Amino acid sequence: MKAIQTIREMQQIITSLKTSGKKIGFVPTMGYLHEGHQTLMKQARKENDVLVVSIFVNPLQFGVGEDLDGYPRDFERDRVIAEQEGVDILFNPTVKEMYPNSSTVKVMVQDRTDVLCGKSRPGHFDGVATVLTKLFHIVLPDRVYFGLKDAQQVAVVDGLIQDFNFPIELIPVPTVREKDGLAKSSRNVYLSPLERDQAKELYQGLQLAKTVIEQGERNPEEIVQLVKGHINKTCKATIDYVELRSYPQLRPIETIVGKVILAVAVKFSKARLIDNIILEIV
Amino acid sequence: MKAIQTIREMQQIITSLKTSGKKIGFVPTMGYLHEGHQTLMKQARKENDVLVVSIFVNPLQFGVGEDLDGYPRDFERDRVIAEQEGVDILFNPTVKEMYPNSSTVKVMVQDRTDVLCGKSRPGHFDGVATVLTKLFHIVLPDRVYFGLKDAQQVAVVDGLIQDFNFPIELIPVPTVREKDGLAKSSRNVYLSPLERDQAKELYQGLQLAKTVIEQGERNPEEIVQLVKGHINKTCKATIDYVELRSYPQLRPIETIVGKVILAVAVKFSKARLIDNIILEIV
Repeated sequence: MKAIQTIREMQQIITSLKTSGKKIGFVPTMGYLHEGHQTLMKQARKENDVLVVSIFVNPLQFGVGEDLDGYPRDFERDRVIAEQEGVDILFNPTVKEMYPNSSTVKVMVQDRTDVLCGKSRPGHFDGVATVLTKLFHIVLPDRVYFGLKDAQQVAVVDGLIQDFNFPIELIPVPTVREKDGLAKSSRNVYLSPLERDQAKELYQGLQLAKTVIEQGERNPEEIVQLVKGHINKTCKATIDYVELRSYPQLRPIETIVGKVILAVAVKFSKARLIDNIILEIV
Repeated sequence: MKAIQTIREMQQIITSLKTSGKKIGFVPTMGYLHEGHQTLMKQARKENDVLVVSIFVNPLQFGVGEDLDGYPRDFERDRVIAEQEGVDILFNPTVKEMYPNSSTVKVMVQDRTDVLCGKSRPGHFDGVATVLTKLFHIVLPDRVYFGLKDAQQVAVVDGLIQDFNFPIELIPVPTVREKDGLAKSSRNVYLSPLERDQAKELYQGLQLAKTVIEQGERNPEEIVQLVKGHINKTCKATIDYVELRSYPQLRPIETIVGKVILAVAVKFSKARLIDNIILEIV
């Protein structure tokens, strides 16, 4: 595995790989790699000739009051994990390398952002889309991998790639779950044993809704109330939102048809958990 | 020469050309090709294996009150000119092909825009940068050619390419001039014979300033007044602006040093003419 810090070296190597016909798979991360990232890497490793992983804590996507400096970092640990997963190139530029001057341009995401988790993070997805635009031009991937746990991010990246005509295939990777259905997350360690047991009910609520939809329910409001009811009954936690929207457009819907997302965010005492399922109703 | 209307076909052809190591030169235009475009094409033809020209009247860069529908179009004439210049691929998509849905993303140009001609065209360069981002992903050029007559556009594209790390070389092409120095422009035909004669004084004024700077003048205000005086003395026209700024940053400067642009815009009775020179003062 090669670790590269400069854009110039990265572009040179990638250009020569692409000229020789190699397919590039790319997993962009902010480091502090966990099982979710490893799942993305494993799939990307299988599907491409070359696997590139970037580690870059992007200041642009942190809002006011969001702790950029406190974001966890452990490059040596990340390097070992990347090596284990068969990564060919680890790209870990400095902030100065990525943003040497105040930038003359940025990407503005004008849709899919002011709902779900994006509602409380204004500007966050502008920062995500801007750094991805840069990374896509540096890594020139054929395929890029994102986890469906953050389904709104996948929706925004889908819009970015489609609307800007990036010659890149977006591969959304299904959420990895514990045996009882709880979506894996580095935040799960902040749950008390009782909360950890209750937390499985987020996924249970989503599965209950899925069953009811498959049985014919087409009213989004009924489903939202069903899930809220299930969570309130089973968890000592505060519901941030339960929403049912079209996917990936994230528009409100009047009836459940086509591709839809059912997403929840719930606050336990020390951890805010999110989860979602995406359904296609013909 | 091949004329292509779809993004998919364009990306397929270009990907296969690039895999075989061909260098792509690209001249983006809004059609109604004139001598300026032909100069860009001739240079791009010499420097690349494949020459791509796009013809697309981009609605996004027209502001309120700017006549999108009235913009001149003549595809058959353009096709003949492109063929003569040895163009390999003419890309002329429809508006629906380029903007099939309302877009989820756009490029915002946050610098270099609210000066010179950009001051009176809010949003114009956002539209330019957005369509170029799309076209760059569709054509995947190694080199892209723009005329220095619109030096502000070159500055904005320079920022776009640098700050988004496009793997593209920007080639600014010097302004083509008539024998007496008047910058060639499709608007020159709107000048009366008297105005046509006076119009040469724009360039004469710029050259006068150049001489004075080379003789040691370092005060931008002195130079601006010198050029304004020259134009007022020699032309029956209204000065829109005469500005001396850093290039390509387009920042105001206190003393003339480094790379600078001296730019003028002047209104004759029926034509608004622009011109500029770029100097490097060590």
